[in-house]
Amino acid sequence: MFILKIGGSILTNKDAAESEVDSESLKRIAGEIKSSLDNSFKELIIVHGAGSFGHPPAKKYKIGEKFDKSEYPQKRIGFCETQNAVKKLNMLICEAFINEGVPVVAIPASSFMTATNKRITEGKLDAFRRYLDKGFIPVIYGDVVLDSELEICVISGDQLIQYLAMNLNPDCVVLGTDVDGVYNKNPKTHDDAVFFEKFTSLKDLDTLEGTTNVDVTGGMVGKIKELLYLADLGIESKIINAEVKDNIYKVLENENVKGTVISRGN
Amino acid sequence: MFILKIGGSILTNKDAAESEVDSESLKRIAGEIKSSLDNSFKELIIVHGAGSFGHPPAKKYKIGEKFDKSEYPQKRIGFCETQNAVKKLNMLICEAFINEGVPVVAIPASSFMTATNKRITEGKLDAFRRYLDKGFIPVIYGDVVLDSELEICVISGDQLIQYLAMNLNPDCVVLGTDVDGVYNKNPKTHDDAVFFEKFTSLKDLDTLEGTTNVDVTGGMVGKIKELLYLADLGIESKIINAEVKDNIYKVLENENVKGTVISRGN
Repeated sequence: MFILKIGGSILTNKDAAESEVDSESLKRIAGEIKSSLDNSFKELIIVHGAGSFGHPPAKKYKIGEKFDKSEYPQKRIGFCETQNAVKKLNMLICEAFINEGVPVVAIPASSFMTATNKRITEGKLDAFRRYLDKGFIPVIYGDVVLDSELEICVISGDQLIQYLAMNLNPDCVVLGTDVDGVYNKNPKTHDDAVFFEKFTSLKDLDTLEGTTNVDVTGGMVGKIKELLYLADLGIESKIINAEVKDNIYKVLENENVKGTVISRGN
Repeated sequence: MFILKIGGSILTNKDAAESEVDSESLKRIAGEIKSSLDNSFKELIIVHGAGSFGHPPAKKYKIGEKFDKSEYPQKRIGFCETQNAVKKLNMLICEAFINEGVPVVAIPASSFMTATNKRITEGKLDAFRRYLDKGFIPVIYGDVVLDSELEICVISGDQLIQYLAMNLNPDCVVLGTDVDGVYNKNPKTHDDAVFFEKFTSLKDLDTLEGTTNVDVTGGMVGKIKELLYLADLGIESKIINAEVKDNIYKVLENENVKGTVISRGN
């Protein structure tokens, strides 16, 4: 089984005035997945980020921050707005995948998961197993869920990967981002940036905190933290550049692709 | 607790070339619900139909009919297409409700329910309880689900009402349609059409089979069959006209509204 995360930054146009999907990237990635599925059957779960759809309402209503009881009605409507915004993104993504013949079925986190202090603490994955057994590609995405401590919170796509992998024991976990993997500095502005072929310890994170490799839900540091949890369980993962044509196809075909492997091994 | 179904025919423009929501109806109904919620707190679950969004793909791929194994990949993509179409409708409906300040949260049937021969046989409602306890308005809608006999099937909004009511024991079940209730003939074409204030038996259905009060998921006859199941459990329901201004508001305020009560009592 593959768990493939596709970053929100690849799927949405961050520069657009209104939230919109990057139709070209979307069509290309869907096509690469379809080609690989046509080559040979494989179980696949897709996780996508919230991109430029989910972050604005989540930020506007400060979802996940502590608040006074009197603010609850406002927070609640913010929860609804965020759920609906990421649903819209998911609908557009699924539309593009279905158009390419990829049988995607959405299973939103908000409909079955709950959290405690921003960490998923409940969420039975029976539906994933049922759909996989029937040859569907389940899709889950960065979403809002009820939180027993904070009332409501945001669950990032990166945390979802970690939760799914921990519970479903996939053979391969891949994060498609808009960079080649992990560098100690931003390679676009630093000629001496060092690329990590492999990342094995939280200690290496110290050098990363200052990089510009960040997005709203925790950026590269957040991703690596989630993936190191997995590494501790013996599940290796890889960060690759999904903007490079055929990278997604190759990784699904177990071909070599430039990227950073997150693992506890040597 | 109220369970309120809003028919797809009220929410979508059946005459439009492309699927589109009836924004005016939607805004009015959302406003009526908001006014009632502002008057006094009440637990409410909203069920909506698939309208002109869900029916075309479900019909195109004949979802729910028996098929040959070789057709499965095609059926599967039809399932995905239908799921995504009703998700789009739901997204537009939720958008309108949120704009009026109604805290709706979608819980799609396809993410947790399964069926056997087109009847829901599994679907834990914990998430509904959790969201209700936090003052949200859960929304569920006509959708596709996996079926242990037929592989896949369509679950109508009417069946969902019946399932929810059976398991959550609401005080009041209301179906908002585009007619005043049940007649023995189409009142628009028959001056002698008799209006039923109360409907108590499947026997009365015989007179109905020929009426034009029909929609794609079984029409008025299908609705009444679902509601008679409920009546057998002692849960009374009412079919009203949601196109009449203030009817939804009044029914939520327990005021008198013209309609047909479905009950086993006399």
